[in-house]
This record gives sequence, structure tokens and C-alpha cells, in this order.
Amino acid sequence: MQRERTRIMVGVNESTIKGYPHASISSRGAFEWILQKIVRSNTCGFKLIFLHVQVPDEDDSIYASPDDFKSMERKGRARGLQLLEYFVTRCHEIGVSCEAWIKQGDPKEVICHEVKRVRPDFLVVGSRGLGPFQRVFVGTVSEFCVKHAECPVLTIKRSADEAPQDPVDD
Amino acid sequence: MQRERTRIMVGVNESTIKGYPHASISSRGAFEWILQKIVRSNTCGFKLIFLHVQVPDEDDSIYASPDDFKSMERKGRARGLQLLEYFVTRCHEIGVSCEAWIKQGDPKEVICHEVKRVRPDFLVVGSRGLGPFQRVFVGTVSEFCVKHAECPVLTIKRSADEAPQDPVDD
Repeated sequence: MQRERTRIMVGVNESTIKGYPHASISSRGAFEWILQKIVRSNTCGFKLIFLHVQVPDEDDSIYASPDDFKSMERKGRARGLQLLEYFVTRCHEIGVSCEAWIKQGDPKEVICHEVKRVRPDFLVVGSRGLGPFQRVFVGTVSEFCVKHAECPVLTIKRSADEAPQDPVDD
Repeated sequence: MQRERTRIMVGVNESTIKGYPHASISSRGAFEWILQKIVRSNTCGFKLIFLHVQVPDEDDSIYASPDDFKSMERKGRARGLQLLEYFVTRCHEIGVSCEAWIKQGDPKEVICHEVKRVRPDFLVVGSRGLGPFQRVFVGTVSEFCVKHAECPVLTIKRSADEAPQDPVDD
């Protein structure tokens, strides 16, 4: 008798260097790590639930009419979908069941809210994994989720050799 | 071709209510969770590395001679071994490869040091998972490890229905 699949929610975001539709180094790293270290050959045992949270654009100078807003919203959503396509395509290639979601808002709040709603078995969040100084300023999404998400949380730091020169880039 | 097993280091401690050789609720919970949600039927894909860190006893009033110290050290070690026996026995029953270690010192420091030495694929730490107020005072081991351990860290909070009445107990 096969037990229900283990449902893993994975927070993914876009690269700060390349922008959409490129996924960040930490998102791709976390994804590949899950496949290699957790899923392994047991592709039927797991389901990946990708969650991409888009932060509403604060620069409103280019909006001249309500139509502009709608158009930008559509474009933003389309770029988010392209980002998720990368992960969904890889899952289909490997034969791992998955689904993908786009939400708007503050990433840390939205992720914890979605955990409550979707009830995954655990949540995976990538973290830039910087030095002791930068750690004060970044990594707030993962830290918040470890404390507040109502499920186990796996934090995957980016390894040093993957980090770009400017540690804020990803 | 079978890839190398995924090596999971699991920090385990004794129950604060029942004492040795009983494992804490969070340790047992984390262990069973790993078996159910990660290992699943793929028992050959994983190896569990149990780490129990003993905090040196600060109450030295009962030591009258160097022999007393040695005797207490032996007793302490024996109790630690009994604690680990629970996990090792369960692994053997299920057919999951494992090893177990006892170390002395500050748990958070020792765990991060052992991660550096043993290089597991990831570390699992249980956390008491208390409310917003208590969270300030406990959970420092897991918080420290998430920040400082040089590998991915999975934090498993104890679920509310498993929590004893006094949240400091475990």
C-alpha cells in the first residue's frame, strides 16, 4: 500500500541580476538539492508545490491610466509564470508530480499564509547564506518562516562557490 | 547505479520531565517525522547520524574525589548511550542505516562543529515550537544552527497537541 506523497512547498524567486524569467541561484540550488538529496529515485513518493510571491511594484510613475495598471499586472503575472515554467518543466522531465502558484504580497507573510492554507508536509526556503555581517540584513524571509510557518522548515543556504561577487545579487 | 545515501544528522536530547534514558518529545517527533516524510519506503537511500550532546553538569557539590568525577562521567555517558539505543534500535527494526554519537559541551556549538567534521547532507533539529512569547527564550539551539551550520537545516517544531502543559518541559 502506497502512502500519500510527501508534499514539499518550495518558495522560489527571480534572479536579482538577470531578472525574469530567470530563477535565483538560491531557488535553483534548493530545487536541485531536493531532487538529489530528498526525492532521489523515489519520484512517486513526493509532490513539489512551487510558490512564487511577487512583491507589488512600488514605482508607479509609469502608470497614466487604469489600463496601464491592468497591462502591467498582466505582464507581471506572465513573467512570474515564465519563472515557474522552468521548475515545472524540470519536474515533468524527471517524473515528479508538482503544482505551481503565483501570489502577490510580502513574501514572508504570504508563504506562511499559504502553508496554513495548503498544509504541505514541509516548506523549503533558500537563503543567500552570507557572512555574519550581511546576515543581519538579508535572510529575513527564511528566518521569519522558520519561526512562524506551521510546518517543518528546511533552510538551504547558497554555497560559497555559487555566490556572486556582490552578495546582494542572486 | 545507486547514488550514495543521503546522510541526515539528527540532534537528539533527553526528556526534561522523565530524564534519561527517555528521549524528548521533540527528538522522538523529529525522528518519526523523518522516517514517515523523508525516508518513506526508500530505506536504502538514507543514513541517519544521531548526535546527542551532553551539557557538563554544573552542580559539583557531590564530587569528593577525582574518582567521583570519573564515576559520574561513566554514569553520564552510560545514560547517553541508553538514550541513543532507542533510536538505533528503531532504525535496525526498519532497516535504515544509522550511527550514533555522544559529545560533551554547549549543544549549539557542538552540533555546528560536528556538521563541519562529519559533513552530513543536512541537519535536523527539533524545536519546542512555543508561542510568540516563549519563543524569545527557547529554541536557541535550532535558531543558532539554522544560521551557523554549514549545511541545510530542517527545523521541526513540536505540534501543539504534543506539547506538555508547562512548555519548558519536554
